[in-house]
Amino acid sequence: MMWTVKAVGLGVVALSLSLELFAWLRRRLKPGRTLHEVLFFPSEMACVQHIFVPSDSCLCPLPHGVETSFSRLLCRILSAKSSLDVCIFCFSNMDLCRVLLALQIKGVTIRVLTDKDYAAIPGSQIGVLREAGICVRCDGTPVYMHHKFVVVDGRLLITGSLNWTLSAVQSNMENVLITDEPELVRPFIAEFSRLWALNDPARKHHAVDQKPAHVVSRTRD
Amino acid sequence: MMWTVKAVGLGVVALSLSLELFAWLRRRLKPGRTLHEVLFFPSEMACVQHIFVPSDSCLCPLPHGVETSFSRLLCRILSAKSSLDVCIFCFSNMDLCRVLLALQIKGVTIRVLTDKDYAAIPGSQIGVLREAGICVRCDGTPVYMHHKFVVVDGRLLITGSLNWTLSAVQSNMENVLITDEPELVRPFIAEFSRLWALNDPARKHHAVDQKPAHVVSRTRD
Repeated sequence: MMWTVKAVGLGVVALSLSLELFAWLRRRLKPGRTLHEVLFFPSEMACVQHIFVPSDSCLCPLPHGVETSFSRLLCRILSAKSSLDVCIFCFSNMDLCRVLLALQIKGVTIRVLTDKDYAAIPGSQIGVLREAGICVRCDGTPVYMHHKFVVVDGRLLITGSLNWTLSAVQSNMENVLITDEPELVRPFIAEFSRLWALNDPARKHHAVDQKPAHVVSRTRD
Repeated sequence: MMWTVKAVGLGVVALSLSLELFAWLRRRLKPGRTLHEVLFFPSEMACVQHIFVPSDSCLCPLPHGVETSFSRLLCRILSAKSSLDVCIFCFSNMDLCRVLLALQIKGVTIRVLTDKDYAAIPGSQIGVLREAGICVRCDGTPVYMHHKFVVVDGRLLITGSLNWTLSAVQSNMENVLITDEPELVRPFIAEFSRLWALNDPARKHHAVDQKPAHVVSRTRD
């Protein structure tokens, strides 16, 4: 009897300690859960040719092999594997246009939502995107579609103050916040879907919720 | 001898199970770790008088008792207890100005950094803030100080596309992201400090890092 109690006791000790050790190891070894990155602008000027053609030895006068806010932004967008939803007020930056064209060739589904007035300004890349067959919708309301966010593969949010212009990248003081925190990404996905449907030329007379879901996410986890 | 082994064995079991239970209870009972909130604009128009004077029964024609994106934004800023760092391109919204004046009266240390050109436009609230004794610095570079972020008590970040204007709040499509995730908040605190020092009139000729730390945070946690 005593031996049984002792054996059971030691068995429980061993099991309990093993579970504790297993839980600790799991916490230590599991891959990172959430990505957070903040980029500030103006970005240093540097050649970004290697991002598009890694083997190319560029001869331009800009510094080479330098990681900048802009090169990191380009790489984050270029990481798209299946879809890219772009909601941008002003789009005239040719490198960012080149990123979208490269993704289009790779077969990524791209949707671009922009402001109608700013789509027509000199230097706008919206026409180039349309010519390449990228699906673009313009918000034609008299107010500004002032967003500057992107959702990569439905899981990574890139948002901030930065319009996709040369002056925003090279001159202005700007910020870009990148995260894959689901509680932050999900509301932007929902808002993109709502605005995309709202600006569907074929559905102009259909019932689409005209108002944003004002408080989309409010979570403590 | 056997009794000793048995007693020690049972003691270890009890200790181990207690630790497990304690850790589980701690996980269950501890307050939420991270706040994430996303607000979209335009905001519904509603009276915000109750936010400033809770007991006041306002007679204005706007809807009352309605929670909107704007009312939530005001409450988040009003939650400041010790400090408020505002880095905003365009500041003409009178309700947001009223929030800052209320915080100033409560003794919150407020610093406002804005763009020089936009500080002088008609309707700008920068003059009102200065008259109230709030410390304001203007970025006088020929480029835009295009940020639209706030740090509350050095722990809560409010950022997005929204300038502090009436049209941004009531008309435009805009977003505001609110988080207390330290990996996202810290870079904005550092960038605010850098820009604040950069625009100190008394330190114009001192050595302040002119460039933003391009990649301030890149973390998996």
